[in-house]
Amino acid sequence: MRRICITISYDGTEYAGWQRQHNALGIQQVLEDTLEALFGRSAHVVASGRTDTGVHAWGQVASFDLEHEIAPGQLKKAMNSRLPDDIRVMDASEVGLDFHPRFDAKEKTYCYSVYCGDTMPPLYRRYMVLESRPLDRDRIREALALLVGRHDFKAFQSTGSPTNTTIRTLYGAEMKVDPADPHILRFYFTGDGFLYNMVRIMAGTLLQVGYGRFLPGQVEQALRTGRRELAGPTAPAHGLALMSVRYPGR
Amino acid sequence: MRRICITISYDGTEYAGWQRQHNALGIQQVLEDTLEALFGRSAHVVASGRTDTGVHAWGQVASFDLEHEIAPGQLKKAMNSRLPDDIRVMDASEVGLDFHPRFDAKEKTYCYSVYCGDTMPPLYRRYMVLESRPLDRDRIREALALLVGRHDFKAFQSTGSPTNTTIRTLYGAEMKVDPADPHILRFYFTGDGFLYNMVRIMAGTLLQVGYGRFLPGQVEQALRTGRRELAGPTAPAHGLALMSVRYPGR
Repeated sequence: MRRICITISYDGTEYAGWQRQHNALGIQQVLEDTLEALFGRSAHVVASGRTDTGVHAWGQVASFDLEHEIAPGQLKKAMNSRLPDDIRVMDASEVGLDFHPRFDAKEKTYCYSVYCGDTMPPLYRRYMVLESRPLDRDRIREALALLVGRHDFKAFQSTGSPTNTTIRTLYGAEMKVDPADPHILRFYFTGDGFLYNMVRIMAGTLLQVGYGRFLPGQVEQALRTGRRELAGPTAPAHGLALMSVRYPGR
Repeated sequence: MRRICITISYDGTEYAGWQRQHNALGIQQVLEDTLEALFGRSAHVVASGRTDTGVHAWGQVASFDLEHEIAPGQLKKAMNSRLPDDIRVMDASEVGLDFHPRFDAKEKTYCYSVYCGDTMPPLYRRYMVLESRPLDRDRIREALALLVGRHDFKAFQSTGSPTNTTIRTLYGAEMKVDPADPHILRFYFTGDGFLYNMVRIMAGTLLQVGYGRFLPGQVEQALRTGRRELAGPTAPAHGLALMSVRYPGR
């Protein structure tokens, strides 16, 4: 038995998120069906974490076990020749049998993309959200700085999500203007883990700060009190992409 | 009667090009149907030129006549509220009744986008082509320089295209690395007009030069002799986008 680790990129537009489910197609199922078609036995693919319906990935990490002796580079090619073109294996390697993509993940980076303008250019529409109100970028930077660190992010999770602890560490939170198009703002968040909808709620909060509905200090208040209503709305899924997952020693 | 000029952006993936036709949906038809639904009478929308099936536009220019007194800004909003999200009116203005988007066009700029790598990231797949072979960028630049100027581009048109003259002036032809992702090469072409498939054949030729099948000097030979077989293959439609159209005094 071998354990294979793959880095996957996907356009989440057509999928009901990562997880296999009834009545809707998850990315996990597409990968498992592909492996079953290739190797003739059922496969179980485990990811670093779920992504929601419509969320994209540049570097999701997943693993599965394989009896076959195919070289990882060949496996990548074989999978890509069968996968739909909105899911691609970008990298494949053999890892130890004790590797677990979720439990071993050290940090993850997400990006939330916003197009600032009055009309969404069609070539961007699948991957960003439109923000027509003028944004105060200095205030957004103030709010971003307040998010960084080890905090109770209870106010930044969708209500009713079951978790042991709502304490997470955000190592970095920054805003970058896309060097290819100054209309595009990207919020990057790197942390040891993220609560359900946490990045989308942080993005929604930053936009409220940007157009002046919230003061930057409200972020601190939300963190301190854990009150969901002090944070902003959950920003739409299609602006979000999982960029990368880091593991110890890699 | 008023003449309205609109700048349109579209994702060409789902359309059979610009032109209205039987058995397939052209972008022209979507716009004409939208105007008819809004104003209750049939409309005729004229563009700066056709784009082929699968070709995109950031700044296609078109015009139509209207009896209604709606302000251009309101017209833009009204059209966008009815158009599918892969077609957007980015700008609308009133122009003189003698304005013609094709005959008056002074120059056009196209961009052809190439992703250099072994696997196409799904989020790019609709808008670029994959090139896995290593490209010699200096040689591509040499070939680009040879294309610039007033030439007979007969070798760079699809055979059988009816035109009065195959002489065109290319004001600029350059390659840029995308500042947001160094894997992306973009070829920009600005000229007074383009023959059928001319940009896609130039892009196909540049890639042949880049991976060493053609020497840059073959471009000159193709221009001199007009022999289509000296130019490269027609590169796929989905890598191409019409960027902008310029008019005198604008």
